[in-house]
Amino acid sequence: MPRAVRERQMMDAAVQTFGQRGYRAASMDEIADLAGVSKPLVYLYLSSKEELFTACIRRESEALIAAVQAGVEPGLPADRQLWAGLGAFFTHTAENPDGWAVLHRQARTHGEPFAAEVSVLREEIVAFVTGLIGAAAREAHQGSELADRDMAGLAQALVGAAESLAGWANETGGVSAKEAAGTLMNFAWMGLGDLMNGERWNPR
Amino acid sequence: MPRAVRERQMMDAAVQTFGQRGYRAASMDEIADLAGVSKPLVYLYLSSKEELFTACIRRESEALIAAVQAGVEPGLPADRQLWAGLGAFFTHTAENPDGWAVLHRQARTHGEPFAAEVSVLREEIVAFVTGLIGAAAREAHQGSELADRDMAGLAQALVGAAESLAGWANETGGVSAKEAAGTLMNFAWMGLGDLMNGERWNPR
Repeated sequence: MPRAVRERQMMDAAVQTFGQRGYRAASMDEIADLAGVSKPLVYLYLSSKEELFTACIRRESEALIAAVQAGVEPGLPADRQLWAGLGAFFTHTAENPDGWAVLHRQARTHGEPFAAEVSVLREEIVAFVTGLIGAAAREAHQGSELADRDMAGLAQALVGAAESLAGWANETGGVSAKEAAGTLMNFAWMGLGDLMNGERWNPR
Repeated sequence: MPRAVRERQMMDAAVQTFGQRGYRAASMDEIADLAGVSKPLVYLYLSSKEELFTACIRRESEALIAAVQAGVEPGLPADRQLWAGLGAFFTHTAENPDGWAVLHRQARTHGEPFAAEVSVLREEIVAFVTGLIGAAAREAHQGSELADRDMAGLAQALVGAAESLAGWANETGGVSAKEAAGTLMNFAWMGLGDLMNGERWNPR
C-alpha cells in the first residue's frame, strides 16, 4: 500500500477516534486498530499522541477553511456570498462531525498548545469574514460609516454565532446544514443588510 | 477577621491568579500570598487546586447570570430588554476580566470536568435568551411563525456572538461595554426585529 494512502488512513482513524472518544480517552492502540496498521507504524509516522492530535487539528483546520473559501463566489452579491459561505461551512461541519468535534470541543479542552492551534484557524476565518463584510459595505456604498473596528466586531459576532450554531446543529438531531445556515442568515443578514444601508438600532 | 471575609479574599485572589496567569501556571502559593493568608489555610478551605478552580468557575458563573438577569427589566419592550441584557453582560465581562477569562478561556481549556461546569452556565444563559426571544416573538404577534427550534437556534447564535464579542472586547484595547453591546444590537436586533415582523431573508 502506498505510504500516502496508509498515512491518510491513520489520520482518518485518528480524527474519528479523537472526535468520538475524546482526546484523553483515545489510545494509540485503538487508532492503529481502526486504521488497520500496527501500533509501531503509527509511532513511526508521528512520534506521540500529542503530535498526532496536533496533525489532526491542522488537517481539519485546512479542510474547513478550504471548504468555506471554495463555497464563496467573489462575483456574487454580498448576501449570496454570505449564504454560500455559511452553507459551505455548515455542510462541512455536518458531513465531518468528528473533524468539527476535534476543532470545536477537543482541541479547546485539552490544554494551551492545542487551543493555540485552533485559535490560528479562528483568526484566519475572522479575517476572511471581515473581508466579506468590508466588501458588502463597499457594495452598499456605505463604507465610510463602518470603521475597521466595527467590521472586526461584526466578524467576531458572526463567527461566534456560526461556531455556536454548528455545535448545536451537530448535537441536536435532524438540524440540517441548510436549516443552520438559514437561521444564521435570518439572524445576521437581515441585521447586516439594514446596517449596510445605513440603518442602525438606537435605544429610544 | 471573620471567616466569610477571609474566604472571599481567597476566592478573589484565586480568580485573579487563574484569570491572569492561567490554570496550569497558577500555584496555591501565589494565591495564598495574594490573599494575605498562609498556604495551609487555603488548603483548609478547599483541599486542592482543582476544587478551588471549580469553586471559582461556579462563583463567576453565578455572578454573571445574576448580573444579566438583574439587567433585564421584564416590563420593557423586547428590543430594550435585549439592549439592557447585553449591556449588563458586556459591563460585567468588562469589569470582571479575570472572572471572564476563567469562564471563557481557562475553564474550557483545561479538561472535561471544568468544561462541563462552564457548559452548565452556558445552557442556563441559552435558556434565558430563548425565553427573551419567545417573549419578543409573542410581543410582535408572530409567535406562530417561530417554532421552538427556531428560537433555540437563534438563542445559540446570539449567545455565541456575545461570547465571541466579549472575548474580543477584553483583548482589544478600548472597546467599551456599550460599544460591544451596540455592535451586537446592530448585528442581531436589526435582524431579529425584521424576523419578528415576519420578514425573512430568502436566497433569490
